[in-house]
Amino acid sequence: MEKSDATAGTAAGETADESEGRNEPGFGNGRVVTADEYFQRVRHHNVRPAKWSAEDMMETLEELGKDPLRHAERRFVSLVNEDHGELAGASPGIFIGIQLIHPGEVVPNHRHNSVAIYHYLQGTGFTTVEGTKFPYKKGDTIVCPAWAYHEHAATGDEDTIMYVTQDMTEMAAKRTLFFEEPQGIENVRHMVQGTSKSWSATRDPDKE
Amino acid sequence: MEKSDATAGTAAGETADESEGRNEPGFGNGRVVTADEYFQRVRHHNVRPAKWSAEDMMETLEELGKDPLRHAERRFVSLVNEDHGELAGASPGIFIGIQLIHPGEVVPNHRHNSVAIYHYLQGTGFTTVEGTKFPYKKGDTIVCPAWAYHEHAATGDEDTIMYVTQDMTEMAAKRTLFFEEPQGIENVRHMVQGTSKSWSATRDPDKE
Amino acid sequence: MEKSDATAGTAAGETADESEGRNEPGFGNGRVVTADEYFQRVRHHNVRPAKWSAEDMMETLEELGKDPLRHAERRFVSLVNEDHGELAGASPGIFIGIQLIHPGEVVPNHRHNSVAIYHYLQGTGFTTVEGTKFPYKKGDTIVCPAWAYHEHAATGDEDTIMYVTQDMTEMAAKRTLFFEEPQGIENVRHMVQGTSKSWSATRDPDKE
Amino acid sequence: MEKSDATAGTAAGETADESEGRNEPGFGNGRVVTADEYFQRVRHHNVRPAKWSAEDMMETLEELGKDPLRHAERRFVSLVNEDHGELAGASPGIFIGIQLIHPGEVVPNHRHNSVAIYHYLQGTGFTTVEGTKFPYKKGDTIVCPAWAYHEHAATGDEDTIMYVTQDMTEMAAKRTLFFEEPQGIENVRHMVQGTSKSWSATRDPDKE
Repeated sequence: MEKSDATAGTAAGETADESEGRNEPGFGNGRVVTADEYFQRVRHHNVRPAKWSAEDMMETLEELGKDPLRHAERRFVSLVNEDHGELAGASPGIFIGIQLIHPGEVVPNHRHNSVAIYHYLQGTGFTTVEGTKFPYKKGDTIVCPAWAYHEHAATGDEDTIMYVTQDMTEMAAKRTLFFEEPQGIENVRHMVQGTSKSWSATRDPDKE
Repeated sequence: MEKSDATAGTAAGETADESEGRNEPGFGNGRVVTADEYFQRVRHHNVRPAKWSAEDMMETLEELGKDPLRHAERRFVSLVNEDHGELAGASPGIFIGIQLIHPGEVVPNHRHNSVAIYHYLQGTGFTTVEGTKFPYKKGDTIVCPAWAYHEHAATGDEDTIMYVTQDMTEMAAKRTLFFEEPQGIENVRHMVQGTSKSWSATRDPDKE
Repeated sequence: MEKSDATAGTAAGETADESEGRNEPGFGNGRVVTADEYFQRVRHHNVRPAKWSAEDMMETLEELGKDPLRHAERRFVSLVNEDHGELAGASPGIFIGIQLIHPGEVVPNHRHNSVAIYHYLQGTGFTTVEGTKFPYKKGDTIVCPAWAYHEHAATGDEDTIMYVTQDMTEMAAKRTLFFEEPQGIENVRHMVQGTSKSWSATRDPDKE
Repeated sequence: MEKSDATAGTAAGETADESEGRNEPGFGNGRVVTADEYFQRVRHHNVRPAKWSAEDMMETLEELGKDPLRHAERRFVSLVNEDHGELAGASPGIFIGIQLIHPGEVVPNHRHNSVAIYHYLQGTGFTTVEGTKFPYKKGDTIVCPAWAYHEHAATGDEDTIMYVTQDMTEMAAKRTLFFEEPQGIENVRHMVQGTSKSWSATRDPDKE
């Protein structure tokens, strides 16, 4: 519902106002807490260091690589430190993913307002950002700015493996994250609003 | 340009690759800097405290209030500490605005992915978020979540004055900020891409 | 434990390495998750708007004001939207507090690396930042930069009420927040490490 | 100056108050700007993608590696996209560094409240976090939480090369960043306050 109208006038906010005389919100999620309670909540438990071994990463990634229906844009693993709950990532603010692209495949053009930094651990090909082609090889790093369209192609004869860094974790928790994937599908809201039709391991042909 | 094509193949990235033999980026904005240089850059000068007096705020705000062509959504002042440059706000991360709405006026439905926290210093009326009407009066506080449509109406017989807090400053500097204003105008990209047709003190009737 | 030593050699990390042959971390908190699982975790539920009425705020604040043992630095309420869990604040990134200082009282010198923006709703006095005294009155706003010592004194004959904005919420969740309170107490680590001896409603005379 | 005293009473804040009658701040850095001006400032220019080639990174890193006086903790290069000014990093929020540790060397115990994520591109050894030793080899990733002491030792017979990700960039710009380096040196304030005695390519023996 985007417009207030007569019906909205009977919503919780106004009703509560009439019955309580103090303009209460209708949802009950706004609370006034004392300093004592607030400092209990703001002090989070300690985070332990974490390690992800090369074997574990590659094993899981290779498993995904064997799925014939899985497209390249869903063929990645993410490193999660379980010690910081809702801010789920390698750190509370940073997502680390390791992505596998088979020779000849393309991760189709898409964009998001998290910045992505690609470090190429293996393979050759092109990362294209807003129409400019950047050739890549092992050891290169390319950054794709926020909300720039980009695609990745593996053009050599070995798998491309990218070590991907994004500030997605914090943005998701703050509900500021936008995705448009694939290009042209009007779904830019989905990570903000918490709903998405398009996130699946296999692409939906109805959308392409 | 959203798609790579034959023309993009002659772009700087690939050309540089051919002539230099090392896959250079074409734009020259990617630099490898030493630890010594980096720590010079990451150490920012000190920030001084700042004060904005009630008189200064109200004087500037009243000046805007006298402009007959200025609509309510452009009738605010912002408190800026000039000591942190590109992160222009009351703090490096936080925007503070004081907004004036004349009786009978409405700030039309719009949204952004910065969260806005409204504290009402004066006036009565309604703030409507995604169709739910919240009555407000002096001393109330209402939060509008990221990317939720909202409008403000001053329905009493005195001006509404809102003290508005947003995390806009940091989001703008990180190029993660989205605005859709007014509702239905397709301009969600403009704060990210740095261009906008719609930001003007007076609304464009062609857009309404 | 700050130094590695012989004992540390028997810690989980190395033991796991020997028994498993793959350099596993010892704590079990580092997990490799698939794209499918990660996107389930990063998509958070929607946040609803929230309202805190003037009456609720003032009632709770006055209750704290009657406690004869409660010092001014613990006499505040905070506005929390319960819809974003660990990021507990008025928004996922922003803390809003309303603080009450009785005439003649001083909030003693302290500092934190969250920036604080003080808007004075009532009262007169001085906010002193790193030795510079800023007089305040109703309607003024003062910003105290990160890690600057500051104190507040209510010197008039009515209560001072401050509407305080800080970026504390996000910093606490990311474990980057530091407090030194009161000045000279070596407890700068406590908000990062999740422990603190000094947070209590009444000050500990042993510490002063 | 940490305490207000008689001298502070003659500081800019109070003097301005007397002469102007409106409680002006003394520093002139607090400005009240109109909506029109603010939106000019908050709209930043576009950021272009950037690429850093493996050859450029390694060439600069090897150059640092030949300096006999340079210690391991200063032997890194950082990838900077020059398009986002004060937020100097590979992205506005993220620092990427590539660090070289010669066999037998140790990066001494230190800590910072930015989180560091180490991906090992080459070499073997131990990263020790708060006393727990984590063995590393090519392809492993280890995260060191905010404000945890850590050191790195290269124990094999080839150089260790680490690809390091930190959220340092944004924290530095927001003046929330703390370093203690090396352990025991009281310099936790320096990145916040913008001054530091200890940042040099070669360690100061007086400090050890």
